[in-house]
Amino acid sequence: MIDIETQQELATLYSDLAANDLQPLWTQAKELVPFIPKPATLPWLWRWQRLSELANRAGELITVERGGERRVLLFSNPGLNGRPFATPTMMATIQYLNPQEKAPAHRHAAGAIRFVLQGDGVSTTVNGDACEMHPGDLIVTPNWTWHDHTNAGTEPVIWFDGLDDPTGLALDAIFFEPHVDYTQQIERPFNVTTRTYGGRGVLPLGTVPTLQTPLYLYHRQDVDEALNALLEVSGGPMVSVQYINPTSGRSALPTLGCEMHRIVPSGATKPYRKTGNSIFVVYEGSGYTVINGQRFAWHKGDVFVVPSWAIVEHQAHQVSDLFAVTDRPILAALGLFRETTLDQPQQIIGHFAPK
Amino acid sequence: MIDIETQQELATLYSDLAANDLQPLWTQAKELVPFIPKPATLPWLWRWQRLSELANRAGELITVERGGERRVLLFSNPGLNGRPFATPTMMATIQYLNPQEKAPAHRHAAGAIRFVLQGDGVSTTVNGDACEMHPGDLIVTPNWTWHDHTNAGTEPVIWFDGLDDPTGLALDAIFFEPHVDYTQQIERPFNVTTRTYGGRGVLPLGTVPTLQTPLYLYHRQDVDEALNALLEVSGGPMVSVQYINPTSGRSALPTLGCEMHRIVPSGATKPYRKTGNSIFVVYEGSGYTVINGQRFAWHKGDVFVVPSWAIVEHQAHQVSDLFAVTDRPILAALGLFRETTLDQPQQIIGHFAPK
Amino acid sequence: MIDIETQQELATLYSDLAANDLQPLWTQAKELVPFIPKPATLPWLWRWQRLSELANRAGELITVERGGERRVLLFSNPGLNGRPFATPTMMATIQYLNPQEKAPAHRHAAGAIRFVLQGDGVSTTVNGDACEMHPGDLIVTPNWTWHDHTNAGTEPVIWFDGLDDPTGLALDAIFFEPHVDYTQQIERPFNVTTRTYGGRGVLPLGTVPTLQTPLYLYHRQDVDEALNALLEVSGGPMVSVQYINPTSGRSALPTLGCEMHRIVPSGATKPYRKTGNSIFVVYEGSGYTVINGQRFAWHKGDVFVVPSWAIVEHQAHQVSDLFAVTDRPILAALGLFRETTLDQPQQIIGHFAPK
Amino acid sequence: MIDIETQQELATLYSDLAANDLQPLWTQAKELVPFIPKPATLPWLWRWQRLSELANRAGELITVERGGERRVLLFSNPGLNGRPFATPTMMATIQYLNPQEKAPAHRHAAGAIRFVLQGDGVSTTVNGDACEMHPGDLIVTPNWTWHDHTNAGTEPVIWFDGLDDPTGLALDAIFFEPHVDYTQQIERPFNVTTRTYGGRGVLPLGTVPTLQTPLYLYHRQDVDEALNALLEVSGGPMVSVQYINPTSGRSALPTLGCEMHRIVPSGATKPYRKTGNSIFVVYEGSGYTVINGQRFAWHKGDVFVVPSWAIVEHQAHQVSDLFAVTDRPILAALGLFRETTLDQPQQIIGHFAPK
Repeated sequence: MIDIETQQELATLYSDLAANDLQPLWTQAKELVPFIPKPATLPWLWRWQRLSELANRAGELITVERGGERRVLLFSNPGLNGRPFATPTMMATIQYLNPQEKAPAHRHAAGAIRFVLQGDGVSTTVNGDACEMHPGDLIVTPNWTWHDHTNAGTEPVIWFDGLDDPTGLALDAIFFEPHVDYTQQIERPFNVTTRTYGGRGVLPLGTVPTLQTPLYLYHRQDVDEALNALLEVSGGPMVSVQYINPTSGRSALPTLGCEMHRIVPSGATKPYRKTGNSIFVVYEGSGYTVINGQRFAWHKGDVFVVPSWAIVEHQAHQVSDLFAVTDRPILAALGLFRETTLDQPQQIIGHFAPK
Repeated sequence: MIDIETQQELATLYSDLAANDLQPLWTQAKELVPFIPKPATLPWLWRWQRLSELANRAGELITVERGGERRVLLFSNPGLNGRPFATPTMMATIQYLNPQEKAPAHRHAAGAIRFVLQGDGVSTTVNGDACEMHPGDLIVTPNWTWHDHTNAGTEPVIWFDGLDDPTGLALDAIFFEPHVDYTQQIERPFNVTTRTYGGRGVLPLGTVPTLQTPLYLYHRQDVDEALNALLEVSGGPMVSVQYINPTSGRSALPTLGCEMHRIVPSGATKPYRKTGNSIFVVYEGSGYTVINGQRFAWHKGDVFVVPSWAIVEHQAHQVSDLFAVTDRPILAALGLFRETTLDQPQQIIGHFAPK
Repeated sequence: MIDIETQQELATLYSDLAANDLQPLWTQAKELVPFIPKPATLPWLWRWQRLSELANRAGELITVERGGERRVLLFSNPGLNGRPFATPTMMATIQYLNPQEKAPAHRHAAGAIRFVLQGDGVSTTVNGDACEMHPGDLIVTPNWTWHDHTNAGTEPVIWFDGLDDPTGLALDAIFFEPHVDYTQQIERPFNVTTRTYGGRGVLPLGTVPTLQTPLYLYHRQDVDEALNALLEVSGGPMVSVQYINPTSGRSALPTLGCEMHRIVPSGATKPYRKTGNSIFVVYEGSGYTVINGQRFAWHKGDVFVVPSWAIVEHQAHQVSDLFAVTDRPILAALGLFRETTLDQPQQIIGHFAPK
Repeated sequence: MIDIETQQELATLYSDLAANDLQPLWTQAKELVPFIPKPATLPWLWRWQRLSELANRAGELITVERGGERRVLLFSNPGLNGRPFATPTMMATIQYLNPQEKAPAHRHAAGAIRFVLQGDGVSTTVNGDACEMHPGDLIVTPNWTWHDHTNAGTEPVIWFDGLDDPTGLALDAIFFEPHVDYTQQIERPFNVTTRTYGGRGVLPLGTVPTLQTPLYLYHRQDVDEALNALLEVSGGPMVSVQYINPTSGRSALPTLGCEMHRIVPSGATKPYRKTGNSIFVVYEGSGYTVINGQRFAWHKGDVFVVPSWAIVEHQAHQVSDLFAVTDRPILAALGLFRETTLDQPQQIIGHFAPK
């Protein structure tokens, strides 16, 4: 027990520290350096039915124009104190574009990916290369590439966006610039980066590795074939691919991992945890995922978040494809990626009931 | 102008979005994707006189023991809402160890660097390798290496710590483990990693590149020689070196850049800005730095912060050595590093008056 | 002029050097370190008509069995003093396999590529993965992979082989091992490496870069599409792709570059020279190539060699595809790759007349 | 047994193949793809006494001037048919420079290293950087760097050169250019690359990895310290370091490995074999090396060759330092490096008796 004089001196010390913009570590060591990650991010799920209904209403009420730039709904994880982010590292949105609408050209230091959920007829122009977007396609717009979206079709189109924007903001490194024109000139034939950089095992002679992918459009069909091949070999219940930068074999973007997981109805996947966040988008099928003991049922179009170090098991009712965007490349680059599998399945302690 | 009915529908839409954990982008696009970085972090400076006085008082009142683990004062940047961090990406502290004191052995996923300011006689043991610490030396304890500190000398020792802990917390990837013993066994001769991995241009045969440096102790003298050589060639007013991982030539840690800048009194450095934060520690000399128009006078032992994208000019009154710890390797790895020099010197709009 | 005594002393010195297994440099400096490369390798061309005729005769007279291992005809460059190599760095052959024949399983430290010229029905099994071979396909058998060939079809099959064997011999690093069985067990579905590693921009999650490609079969159709896309953008007269290791974006093998060049009949390519050898195989079309002023007319199936630093111009009479195997990755890895284009077309000083 | 008609057809086939610059593989498969490496290179040793005596005589009889360029004696391995190379991949020489002599400036695509054996007072200027040479120092002149040598001292100087010239010749990629002046201007302070790039764990801020080292001078003392430190940890009988490119942690040159091995008199090293050649230069001490059962006694200044895949054991009579230049980086880059240790010491089957 410390005497009164010491107590007073301590109180004065703490007060003087505060007055000098200093703080003691020893009173808060456990919060600053926890034994294991304690994410504020909550496991969460958004139903497609609600997402598409709200996106449709936004489509009627909101115009797409300079300033607002995009008609997108931001997933706001309830654990993050009202911040408009799905996870502390990733911004995720549902984007809606009416027939004949165009979203204006700009560029930003945030890298982005777009995964098409519904509708045909949109193309995204990336640095002058027009990329057609069909359901299941992935379009990538790396850091500081010009991009705009045009719906030349006859139906509304909805896609999912993932951005590293919160990471860029946390690093105070986000820049933004509107293009001088509302949309870019299309300078080359449609989808040409896919045909030049997306070939099977071939690249233009003399290509050198780059940090950001020169391939902007990844076709659904190619992912489908790769998953089928992996299933032929492994048998299931889950096979997984990542979308890569073909010049390096590494993640398409240095800040966002893009993955597709195919789960077949042959039992649950082994309980697994890793550092870093994942946002899953159900492209096809139905099933459920147990996250830290809570059961999340999912169907086509649903979006759900798995926080860092949460224990995860997937189980499909039918063959299901889960697209995922993650911050895994960041954790790997910084030496912070860890993963492990567990022997025992989780005990179910609750069912998530989305709004 | 929109009619009342539409206004009502909009209000209902916003309300329904909120109820479904969604937010519109178009009302907050500029905050989420700013034209240029707008750091909350303030340029700030802490005087050595106050730091050492407060550290001494902590040295009398606080014991070093398990639980609190370390007697360190955390720099708390006034722009960061009371969070105990110098910048959003880095934790910086002043650590104080009395003669015959030992700070207990632990490891954590946060990487750390220690730069010695005052006193002799401390050694830090890193994974069984004891590293002696003298003023101007840098000791590195990479992610998940065991480390403890022992003051075997007769005087208190003060050093500066830099940690990537806020980055690890933001990524929900911090782990911590206390060692089973209060301090580690010393397994090899003192400073042996410096002699094996720190030689000039030689490495053990068969060494392969690693993400984290196997070299834990960098001597002041070697940095001094390199700076002298660069001055011989360039003439000044500033030359700069980085502390590297000798197995790869890259930053010693993937999350923290360690730099030493020597500034000679031959005019101001060219105005310069870069993305990412820097924390400077004045190792020797005196002078001032203009940050976004505000003049920060500095002397030996002072610590100051330069936020991302701030414009910086240094000027020395005498030959001065500024140690810096930065988040530059993160920005580079993620494709977010930008730097530029400006032609015109800044106009001075104020003088920083520290407490 | 040197006096007689010195002449005698010099003669004695040269004699004593020789007796001690030493040689003077100063008498042979220009041969040992020439101003520019002086390849012994001759530009040369082999006609398909002769190749296929001789291969057919070998097919009748020679059996494929252990010991001889393969029924292949080695291209023997007339500049290389009877050595059975197309260039000092590459062994090139025409391989012939009759219906129902099998070439036995073995492995060697020489990396090899096989480019199919005629016939269907062969599959090559590489480390248990069966790869079907159709005209225009490339099959790669990296260093120390088990491989055997089976013609399950009804017609003879002819393909072109390229091996780095002379490089491995020059480095005294060739090993060979026959498989315990005549042919390997096929362990996975046919062509599965192509479907798993050869997808457009996708790889199995968690793939790490390797020096040797895990993708063994490259389809003609994918190369064709990539060339078409490059032509759309560049317009011609020549576009070029390389076959890559998808885990790294680098050359499929570290010792052999595989390339496909499409030349359209819109004039000659710009005169070009590079360090390193190329062996061209005419897959489709006809035209001619000027090499150091000598004109080489070529047609489907012909094989020709371009030595290091030779000046090269190609011209096609119709759309033509030239497959090439080169030592370019070696030159690049060792810092010895140079290339340049020339402004003036070459003057024709002769026509090559093959036997 | 084959009938006469077939024999005649075979003979005609072989004749027709030869007439068409083709050869059969099946008659020479074992030579072209041997079970294990069968180097023509012989293990060999040259005595310092003879080397220095012959170098001195050359010093009296031969002048150093343009054209001959250098007064060097080439080691000519008796296994290599009179070619003036120590191994198929490396040219090795003894170079001799009289007081006040200068060897003229030139550059070549061959990379070179120089290891000083006797004398002081020489400096080598590499791309304008003068590097002083003292016994035990290593000076590196990468591919295509200008270099000249000046003996400003009062005694003759002898050093050992290693060049990758045979590799460059085999790749037909050697270029040579004499400097417009006899010697270069010295543009920066002496030894400045060592002080800027050779610091312990520090590099100029912003340094990016390069294929060739920017550090040209490696001091004996630094190697000595590193070897001592390794001995402190391992205990012997042998510790080994490599000279690295500090920007990458890789071999100083991409074509030549430079190593120093310290052997202490505590028994023989474990029998070891690797692919690739080594040339050893005895810098200090005495002992012997058993190579494929043959015993090579060595003393200070002796030079000996270990061919690829030879079994090697070293044993020192006193603390001995063996410098080695090897082709190991080439084998590693091309995926051809293998190494293994054997359990049983070799049986001695002979003693090498040099001339």
